[in-house]
Amino acid sequence: MTKNPAPAPWNRLDYSAENCSLLHALEIVGDKWAIPILREAFFGLRRFSDFQHSLGCARNLLSTRLSNLVAEGLLEIQSYQVPGQRKRNEYRITEKGRELLPVLIALLQWGDRWAVDPAGPPVLLKHRNCDGKLHVAITCEHGHTDLKAKDIEISAGPGAIRIASGRVA
Amino acid sequence: MTKNPAPAPWNRLDYSAENCSLLHALEIVGDKWAIPILREAFFGLRRFSDFQHSLGCARNLLSTRLSNLVAEGLLEIQSYQVPGQRKRNEYRITEKGRELLPVLIALLQWGDRWAVDPAGPPVLLKHRNCDGKLHVAITCEHGHTDLKAKDIEISAGPGAIRIASGRVA
Repeated sequence: MTKNPAPAPWNRLDYSAENCSLLHALEIVGDKWAIPILREAFFGLRRFSDFQHSLGCARNLLSTRLSNLVAEGLLEIQSYQVPGQRKRNEYRITEKGRELLPVLIALLQWGDRWAVDPAGPPVLLKHRNCDGKLHVAITCEHGHTDLKAKDIEISAGPGAIRIASGRVA
Repeated sequence: MTKNPAPAPWNRLDYSAENCSLLHALEIVGDKWAIPILREAFFGLRRFSDFQHSLGCARNLLSTRLSNLVAEGLLEIQSYQVPGQRKRNEYRITEKGRELLPVLIALLQWGDRWAVDPAGPPVLLKHRNCDGKLHVAITCEHGHTDLKAKDIEISAGPGAIRIASGRVA
């Protein structure tokens, strides 16, 4: 029986970094306001005036940022009308936006550990059903959880672009 | 037996958003280069020339960004010397930096789903021990996993700052 040779270990410098999905994600949510606005949407805000109150940013800036998030499909507009007032827009988070929740909670838990105010975390997140405190965990499909960098094996995916190695001796 | 009244539900607009741990985290890693540099560090790069090759950014910009990450305690400098060359610095990720890994993988998985190139993901992450594909999951301390926004209960933490409610009727 012949055995396949072990594949060469993945070397970062053999591959282009330009088509990285993480960079593509940052192109969409990496500006200063996208994640804070999405945080407010997760916290239940929908109305322009509420976003403005909570974020304390200028109306025109908020308007542009909300429009960008709508254009990217992270928020969607639904109109509402308080009796006696004009029709207004509400901003509701979409599935594409909701799937950023692990990013937000991962940032929150890191901030709670490494950049928290002396008084402690301003917000606590619990599992509604059992009151258990939440965290974000690196998990594998076979159920192993709380994995660390040393537990992770990296390999080239179908979209990997091989380049001349840049390893400098 | 008297029963305690149910606490009023948490309302975002009753609390200041200024001391948010997520914002504090973004103040440290929210600029354009911090997360891409940390990604390269997770991918195993340590040397200035390797970071430069992979990220394709200008030397002076990279130098400033690496210094910022060292100043924030996310990377630390260790010197090395190739025989016959001058002493150089390597940048190694610290515990504080390593704990950002869930943020990076959460961004990567979102990008793989919502912003990936047609060819597919360029990088695959697996659990080294069992070959299981990785993802980042919102998990509670009692072991419930893959929680969604609707499963999460938000409440005020010890650092919450109560403000006059901004709810607009």
